Parts: sequence; structure tokens; C-alpha cells
Amino acid sequence: MKQKILLLGATGSIGQSTQNCVRRYPDEFELVGISYYSNEERAQDCVKSFDTIKHVAKTAESIVDMVKTADYDVLVNAIVGCAGFEPTVTALMRGKKVALANKESLVVGGELIDEIIAKHGGSIVPIDSEHSAILQCIYGENRKDVESITITASGGPFRELAASEFANITPERALKHPTWSMGAKITIDSATLMNKGFEVIEAHHLYKIEYDRINVVVHPQSIIHSSVTFIDGAVIAQCGLPDMELPIQYALTFPERKYMIPTPRLDWAKAKQLTFFEPDYDKFPCLRMCYDAGNAGGTLPCVLNAANEVAVAKFLCGEIKFVQIYQMIRRALDYYRRENLESVEQILALDRRIRSEMIDWR
Amino acid sequence: MKQKILLLGATGSIGQSTQNCVRRYPDEFELVGISYYSNEERAQDCVKSFDTIKHVAKTAESIVDMVKTADYDVLVNAIVGCAGFEPTVTALMRGKKVALANKESLVVGGELIDEIIAKHGGSIVPIDSEHSAILQCIYGENRKDVESITITASGGPFRELAASEFANITPERALKHPTWSMGAKITIDSATLMNKGFEVIEAHHLYKIEYDRINVVVHPQSIIHSSVTFIDGAVIAQCGLPDMELPIQYALTFPERKYMIPTPRLDWAKAKQLTFFEPDYDKFPCLRMCYDAGNAGGTLPCVLNAANEVAVAKFLCGEIKFVQIYQMIRRALDYYRRENLESVEQILALDRRIRSEMIDWR
Repeated sequence: MKQKILLLGATGSIGQSTQNCVRRYPDEFELVGISYYSNEERAQDCVKSFDTIKHVAKTAESIVDMVKTADYDVLVNAIVGCAGFEPTVTALMRGKKVALANKESLVVGGELIDEIIAKHGGSIVPIDSEHSAILQCIYGENRKDVESITITASGGPFRELAASEFANITPERALKHPTWSMGAKITIDSATLMNKGFEVIEAHHLYKIEYDRINVVVHPQSIIHSSVTFIDGAVIAQCGLPDMELPIQYALTFPERKYMIPTPRLDWAKAKQLTFFEPDYDKFPCLRMCYDAGNAGGTLPCVLNAANEVAVAKFLCGEIKFVQIYQMIRRALDYYRRENLESVEQILALDRRIRSEMIDWR
Repeated sequence: MKQKILLLGATGSIGQSTQNCVRRYPDEFELVGISYYSNEERAQDCVKSFDTIKHVAKTAESIVDMVKTADYDVLVNAIVGCAGFEPTVTALMRGKKVALANKESLVVGGELIDEIIAKHGGSIVPIDSEHSAILQCIYGENRKDVESITITASGGPFRELAASEFANITPERALKHPTWSMGAKITIDSATLMNKGFEVIEAHHLYKIEYDRINVVVHPQSIIHSSVTFIDGAVIAQCGLPDMELPIQYALTFPERKYMIPTPRLDWAKAKQLTFFEPDYDKFPCLRMCYDAGNAGGTLPCVLNAANEVAVAKFLCGEIKFVQIYQMIRRALDYYRRENLESVEQILALDRRIRSEMIDWR
């Protein structure tokens, strides 16, 4: 039986890699539908190259409709931002497996998603390399034996830049990530370490682990993708050369593994030297904000995310400076007070409200 | 139900750590018997401190007799050298679980041990930190998905010493191991990398993996204890601060884990920097000899081990120089030709013969 895959965000880097996985194992996987945002050429190429595609969606409304009605086994959600939340929830309400690259789903509505999974029996398998690493370290072990987890961070392009230089960071400079090639929004999130903070919140929900047992360590070579410490002191780490196709394929084959032909293998002796540092919470305040918002819970992570999306967009089009990204988010967290999480609609409405109100913020 | 433990080599470093594990979980483990070689004081301390001990053995004959007749669930075999082989085999013939620190058992008779386990249903759980690491990486995965394994090596005290200086290495200098505190024989084996070569042979038998898929990498910090590469390119590594109590406890609790109180946990940021190098096969010919003898199979690994035990003893008492250790082993491998492995008695007789004949070698 082939796994029928519905792929959201087909033209981005995760989407393209997912297509490669389907091509690699045509007897295992079948691509039945895609969504895309704006890259018409890549979308057409995809549709031409897979004659199994029955559904193509582009607008938010048609995407949710496709996720709600199409015949598929796995939703691969590689949409960027809060826009990915409703599709995730819609698939989980149908009891589907979601291979999740859209970490914002768990950031804005992690508590609700936990309830939806408990009620409807769906599941989430992470595509993020860090969370895939944690899953691979935990699989086969007892969850109760997990003492803490450590998420590694490349540190982004400004790890070694003096704080005094941060005022001069241009979008062009921020878009150059040292180890991963990704879309613009997540690349800026990596430069501010907001992306790492989101991963902390994501890990909290995926692995049901308290925030004070989730550590972040800067590891510029991105060879150790994350690690888990068990109650006997053993640390299990998942490692490899940076490559997104492995976590995508693993999310699709989990808990099995399948041979990966084109991936170069890690050779420790060639890796030569691995380094590790504490993150600098003063230079990168977004990371601490994520711990705080995650701990506070309720609607605050949704506020954090919406404010970040607005601020990053403003930075990318030159409206604000790099350092104003976190200043603007801090202001939003003070302005939009915490409420209890009650419904998907509440999150969607709050997200829309923040976006529209912040449009004139500087 | 308590696990009844029979502990061979109770006064050495593994033996002492095993006693700590039993003390830590008195409701789980019960020490029912010990053997020791010469440290009367430590042996008496042990007997006094565990009123559950019913058997004490000292001579080779009485040890085998105890292993053959005592009532126990797990044999912890921490005897040094080929002397550990017969007890291992005796316990496995009774279908017992063997927690194995005596790697020579698998070096001299790995092929026979495989057959004995298949016939009598016993099992081996490794105590060596590297093989414990590999077990922890593989557990929960499909064995068929293992592509290769990498055993890490501290590199010993002479990793950075110029080859021209090797002639001047004294026993005192060779006994200073950079990361692990162990007995004299294994410390010299670590300095020649023979210990690492033995571990390659041990891994071949424990994990049924061909020699060309077993790699050795020098990693002086001993934080990554070994790693496994899977067919999808994922590398799982077991890591931690160097500490023998974890692999001992894991061997006793496997496949469960139990809380370990006194172990300091690995903090990646404090580890700061990890380095990796290819081993220098010219400076350390023993490593290559192990691959070759392992590949040849039959009685050659037994010859290798016996010659090494004789040579190391001669080096420790000042009879030969450090560089003569491998020269003497090389000569023995040429002199004692390969025969097929047929029986435990054959191995024991060959081992005795080599020891007595090599006594006058220089």
C-alpha cells in the first residue's frame, strides 16, 4: 500500500526535497496533491512531473478545503508561518498523520493541538532536523527515562558579530545563513535565534517536556543535530552532515528507515573539530522571550509569533532595523495580554487582529 | 525478583564499580559470589560489605567450578585476558546472561561463542563503554538498517609522540592513560591501540558486522563513546563524560535504564571542543593486525591475544621495549599458522602452548 501524500508548500526547499523523497521511492509514496504560494513555474513543474496529483490549492481557503476533503494518508505541512496552523489542525481533526515542518503550528496552538490529537487520534512527526534528531534518540526508549533534551543551534550568521554592530545589519547580510539553505522568513528567524526559541516551544509540545529541561547549545558545525539525556546519564545524539532530505524521509518512513542513496555520510575524522557554546541571551533576546512566552502559555506564544511575522516582514522590506525586530515583539508581548487558549478560531482571530493592528508600528 | 550477580574480577576497577551499582539498587541486585586474583584486602572488604555473598573463588579451576554450579542470573566477567574465556563459555553453556568486560573472550573464541549462544540461548551484554554505546545506539532500531559502526578511541598517551621517540617509552610512561583509569594490562593495550583492535573484533562478533564496516576514529576527549550509521545516513551516537559506572549499570538493567545519582551529566557547552583524527596505522601497527587477524579468523585471533599477553607482561617487567610488543606479536602471527576453530579445549591448549613457548622470546 502506497502512502498518499498531500504536500503543502510544494515549491519551497522542504517541498522540493519532499518531492525528491517521493521520486526516490515511487513504490512507497504517492503525491496526491500540493499547495503553493507564488512560484507558478515550480508548481507547474511539480504537477507535470507527478501524474498522481489530483489536487492543487493556492489560497488559504482552498488549502484548508483540500486538507479537509482530499483522500490522503500523510499531510506534509511546509507552509511558512501561522498560515500553516489551520491546515495542521484540520488534518489532525481527521485523525491524519502530519509530517510537520511548520513549527508555528505548535508555537501558536500547541496546547490545543495536544487536545485535538488526544480526541481524534492523529499524530505529528517532526520534519525539523532538531526534532527529528530528538525523535530518533528517544525511539525505542521509555519516554519516562528522558531527563533533559538539548537542541543544537548553528548560532546563525551573527554569532560572532559584536552587539554594537547589530544596528547595521542589513536584510542582505541576514539572509546569508552559514549552514542551511532555507526561505527568507526562517533565515531571519535563524539570525535572531527566534527560530531556535520556536523549536524549544515545539519540543515542549512534541515531547511533553518542561521548559527547564530543554537546553539550547550553539554548535556552529551543525553536525550534532540534537541530543537527549536519560536518567542514567547516557546522552544519545543524532548526527550527520547538514541535509534536509533525511529528516523528511524519516518523517515519512518512521519508525522504519529506508536506504538514502544520494546523501554523503558523516565521517568523524573529516568533521575534524566540533565546538559548542552557551547561547548569548543578551545579544539574542528572542530566545529568552520564547522560553518566557512558552512558560506563560495561553495566547502569549501566538502573540509572540504574530509579532515576529510582522516584524520580520518589516525588516525584510527595509521598514525597520534588525534590532527593532525584538523590540517590536517585546512591545507586542506587553500590549496583548495573556488569555487562556480556548479555540482554533480564537487563535486565528487574534493572529489577524495583531497583524492588522501592528501594521503601523515602528 | 532480584537479579543474582556473580562477579569475576571483583577487586579491579570494573569489579569495584559493579559493587557500587549493586549498592545503589539493593532491591534490584544481589551479589551472590565473587572471584579475585590477588588483592586480599579488597576481596575481604567486599565479602564483609555484602552478606549475600555465598561463593568466593580465586584459582582458575575454582572460578570455572563456581560459574558452573552457583545459582545466579548474570555473570559479570571482569577478568583480565584469556583467563576470562572459559568462565564466559561456561556461563553461556548454562544459558546465562553474561555482562562482559573481558573482551578477550570474544577475541579468542568469538566464532565458538556465537555457536554456543545459538545452541544454549544465553546472551552477552557488553560492559566496554564503546560496545555499550553501540548497543544503546542500535536498541529499538532494526539490525538490518545498520550500515557501519564507528568506534572512538582516546588515542592513548602516545598519540602525539613522534614515532622516533617510541623506542624510549618506559612502562611508567605507558601506564599514564589520558582519560580512563584502568588496570595495567588494558592500559598498555590502550597505549599500543591493541585494545582498540580487540574492540573491533569484539564488535564484529557482538553486532554481526563485517570488518570493512567497522571504523575507528581517534577522539581524545572521549565524549562520544561510539556511533552507528544507518542506511538512511542518520548517525546515532552515545555520549557522556567518561565514567565506567554507566555502561556497567546499563549492562545490568538493559534494556531498561535506571536513575544514576552520582554521575555528572554531559554539558555540551562545557565540553567546548571535540576533535577527531584518523588513527595512525604506522605508529600503531597493532590496530591493523587486529583487523587482519579478525578477517583471517580461525585460531589467529587467539594467537594474537596470547602473543599480546606475553609481550605486554614482558614490557611491564622491563624485559622488552615498547616497540618490541608488536614485533613479537607479528612474529607469533607468522609462526603459529591459522587453523580452523573447533573447540574450547583447542583454544585453551593453544593459548597455553603459546605462552609457554614464547617465554624465552625477545
